[in-house]
Amino acid sequence: MALKARVLYDFHGENPGEISIAENELVTVFTEEELEGWLEGENTRGEVGLFPASYVELIKDHISSSASNNGLSSPKAIAAQSPAHTSHTSSDSPSHRGFKVGSGGGSIFNTSQGSDDDWDDDWDDGSTPAHGPQGFSTTPPMYPVTTSLPSRRSSQQQAKSSATVGRNLNRFSTFVKSGGEAFLLGEASAFVKDGDKIVVVMGKHWPEWQEDPYPFTCTIDDPTKQTKFKGMKSYMSYGLTPTHTNVQVNRRYKHFDWLYARLVERFPVISVPHLPEKQATGRFEEDFISKRRKGLIWWMNHMTSHPVLAHCDVFQHFLTCGADEKAWKMGKRKAERDDLVGANFFLTISTPAVPLDLQEVENKIEGFKTFTKRMDENIVVMNTTIGEFSRKQMTGFKKEYQKVGQSFRLLGQAFELDQQAYSAGLNRAIAYTGESYEAIGEYFAEQPRQDLEPISDLLDLYKGHLANFPDIVHVQKGALTKVKDCPKQEGELHERCNIISCATLAEIQHFHRTRVRDFRSQMQHHLRQQISFFQKITAKLEDALLKYDDDQ
Amino acid sequence: MALKARVLYDFHGENPGEISIAENELVTVFTEEELEGWLEGENTRGEVGLFPASYVELIKDHISSSASNNGLSSPKAIAAQSPAHTSHTSSDSPSHRGFKVGSGGGSIFNTSQGSDDDWDDDWDDGSTPAHGPQGFSTTPPMYPVTTSLPSRRSSQQQAKSSATVGRNLNRFSTFVKSGGEAFLLGEASAFVKDGDKIVVVMGKHWPEWQEDPYPFTCTIDDPTKQTKFKGMKSYMSYGLTPTHTNVQVNRRYKHFDWLYARLVERFPVISVPHLPEKQATGRFEEDFISKRRKGLIWWMNHMTSHPVLAHCDVFQHFLTCGADEKAWKMGKRKAERDDLVGANFFLTISTPAVPLDLQEVENKIEGFKTFTKRMDENIVVMNTTIGEFSRKQMTGFKKEYQKVGQSFRLLGQAFELDQQAYSAGLNRAIAYTGESYEAIGEYFAEQPRQDLEPISDLLDLYKGHLANFPDIVHVQKGALTKVKDCPKQEGELHERCNIISCATLAEIQHFHRTRVRDFRSQMQHHLRQQISFFQKITAKLEDALLKYDDDQ
Repeated sequence: MALKARVLYDFHGENPGEISIAENELVTVFTEEELEGWLEGENTRGEVGLFPASYVELIKDHISSSASNNGLSSPKAIAAQSPAHTSHTSSDSPSHRGFKVGSGGGSIFNTSQGSDDDWDDDWDDGSTPAHGPQGFSTTPPMYPVTTSLPSRRSSQQQAKSSATVGRNLNRFSTFVKSGGEAFLLGEASAFVKDGDKIVVVMGKHWPEWQEDPYPFTCTIDDPTKQTKFKGMKSYMSYGLTPTHTNVQVNRRYKHFDWLYARLVERFPVISVPHLPEKQATGRFEEDFISKRRKGLIWWMNHMTSHPVLAHCDVFQHFLTCGADEKAWKMGKRKAERDDLVGANFFLTISTPAVPLDLQEVENKIEGFKTFTKRMDENIVVMNTTIGEFSRKQMTGFKKEYQKVGQSFRLLGQAFELDQQAYSAGLNRAIAYTGESYEAIGEYFAEQPRQDLEPISDLLDLYKGHLANFPDIVHVQKGALTKVKDCPKQEGELHERCNIISCATLAEIQHFHRTRVRDFRSQMQHHLRQQISFFQKITAKLEDALLKYDDDQ
Repeated sequence: MALKARVLYDFHGENPGEISIAENELVTVFTEEELEGWLEGENTRGEVGLFPASYVELIKDHISSSASNNGLSSPKAIAAQSPAHTSHTSSDSPSHRGFKVGSGGGSIFNTSQGSDDDWDDDWDDGSTPAHGPQGFSTTPPMYPVTTSLPSRRSSQQQAKSSATVGRNLNRFSTFVKSGGEAFLLGEASAFVKDGDKIVVVMGKHWPEWQEDPYPFTCTIDDPTKQTKFKGMKSYMSYGLTPTHTNVQVNRRYKHFDWLYARLVERFPVISVPHLPEKQATGRFEEDFISKRRKGLIWWMNHMTSHPVLAHCDVFQHFLTCGADEKAWKMGKRKAERDDLVGANFFLTISTPAVPLDLQEVENKIEGFKTFTKRMDENIVVMNTTIGEFSRKQMTGFKKEYQKVGQSFRLLGQAFELDQQAYSAGLNRAIAYTGESYEAIGEYFAEQPRQDLEPISDLLDLYKGHLANFPDIVHVQKGALTKVKDCPKQEGELHERCNIISCATLAEIQHFHRTRVRDFRSQMQHHLRQQISFFQKITAKLEDALLKYDDDQ
């Protein structure tokens, strides 16, 4: 059952196992089953190997009727398909991850679905399918989820493939996965209650999320160790107290994790902050717990200050549902069956009266891309510099001050060999000065935790956001490209593209506002800490100086 | 004319050219001329080579009548000699260096008679013998001066050789060179005016120099460049203004150098502070001038606060003689022909009524030896530590703060890509914070000059004193040993030993007092500088913090 396929674009095999194919060439495809976006086949020169699935179009007559139609259909074939699958009304996979999975590598925040230290501990009824260690969900019928973009050329080639308003050939495109494409093509459909409406208003220059009329914050207490199954299982429990209820609820890390997965699939163009990493290093358990808690606080701050995220049902359920197991499960199931995820999210967006100028949107998006690139680069530099500075303070600076302190102390001890009354005061003072320098060495060693680590945590949080935005921007760019290339269907497409653009720009604007707020407050915190650090040193030295007046 | 000599102590040749000789062995001496304390000869095993002159006793019958009798006489032979040579009434060697030469190696203060940058420039009449580049004087008849103790065992073996009250066999012994031995043996004689009397009083526990009834200080201005011979010669001139005359005199470094030489030969048991090093490094001329001036200030402070040194004729001449060339030369010649140098110095000492208990003196001296050893060790450690700390601040610390500052500035620049009004204030504030950190880096680099260098200078001054004291202590020990071994001549010997002991202990006491004073004031200075340094940093950071409130 050798299939034939027409090559849509030139592809030059560069790596072992790949073969080159030319536009309009007819190639043989050995099996229609893709291997991470690649097909195996033979070109007209008789070479056998791999080529990207998205570069070819299977010859219609040979299309198999198999349900596993993984992106091999021609645009027309798919356009003819029913949109019935586009709203997956139930996701029975609580750990379903969405398209941002794995994009934040390197930061303390991550989204990988590794087994948590307390993950294997059942916390829900049997209706939830069991998770393997990696816990990835089975793919929903039409929009497969994966952890990485398999084709190295996907985004570049994507532009080419949008020559007609049809489905995107690359199933791994964020535009597709997020539901952006489906929405743009009018395939999204769901019932949107008034309470679900998300309003984008026109700010001075940018669309913005409507300001939160009921702002609140939420504290996270030090986690406590809990046990269950008669002490067989233990886990850390975080007490969360949102200010709008002022009632504490207890949550475990895996609850955050579950919530995160819901949010990611729910909001295609909103940057859901990454959770702090989950791998317990074991050796530094207390450090790890403290670090995770700090990460969760940053996470929570971003959540509660986001007008959309803060008030979405699943987050409110997470923040307010008490110890009633039944109520928790009900809310959980409701969230997992939420109709307004992915493509349908865009149905909830209410835009400003005047549509945006698409050219201006494009400029803004381009500007933002440049911004994020620069910021990302600088975060890397800054994190390295700060890390190095911390290390130097904790080792080198400390050592230098302690060595000086020690040499003062030794001199004081040598001087003590002279037992005459008039030298005793000096000896004590020098000894005290030595101790002071040793203490100052300790101050230096302890300081980075107070003023550099918080900056580093902030940078990590923003590194997560910066890792989210390429995908978000990609959704908007996908819509824009499609609309530009097809003026015929302007009315509806433009309207839907405007919705996507409004949401994207509102999210970008929100990013900038929180960035300015967060960096301002963190820099202030840093400087205040530094000031009190140097004041502490000064006080110590003033103390030492006084000793030279005593006993003179 | 092969001489014979009897070996007094075993000597094991360890280095090439040395031969071993055994006690009581009769060896052949090829020439009685010593080579820096060594003789050449042949032992009974036929080995030819060098052995220490002080380890052998030339056989009497063979003693040459030559005038160059350099320590080869047997004790008796020497005891029979006339004491006529002991008071060298005129020293025509203005650069005569005394016995402390070369003992302060490694410090910024030194006593070596190297050619100064302006030394070759004539400043006196032709009656002064010309100086070679190393400028060492011809040795006075009886007490040769050298820059180092030639025998590695001299001080240990010294004790053995004092079995009878005779001359010391080792002509390089400080006890001998200083004139201590000659004085103890009653060979010193000179006319002592009342004005020359130096009074030692009994303090609470220690003999002390009588307090200076006319204390004064002396300022040293920044040196000015002077020229002579129509600009052919240039030199630095220091303006000195002693408070007791309040008239400025101008002196060059070589004047200090000449004065130093006078003081060293004049006062056998007084620690004359070493002058700052004279080698101009050339490349850092300004640094060098500033460093030398600081060294001269320390030197001057010690001089003016020393009851004996401050009021001695030569120092007063140095401080008060104006521009009158003739008056200067007269004073200069007078000082160079001073009768009360070396052994005769002790004739000027007036002791407390009750003689010291020699055992107690010995204990005190022993205690002081322990003290100086410990202090010397600790000065080395401290100087190294401080030097390293300075270096770290000037390079590492500076670099770290500047790197952090730079990364802040870069982040600020990245943020400037977002041109929205609400972010402008933050961007400026972050940029300012970056600059502040870079400034703080500079502060760190500049600070050591303010607070570590002065300590280092102080340590150098004291390193010089500590290098002086072994010789001073040696003089006293030499006297004590002689007295203990010879109870017969108790009366006179004891009295003279008491004089040496009183002077030595008074000097030790003075050392302790100035040490306590100097270290107290320097530590205070250091701490005050450090405090204002950290306050400056704090102010800079407070400044930066304010920027985050502006434009918000």
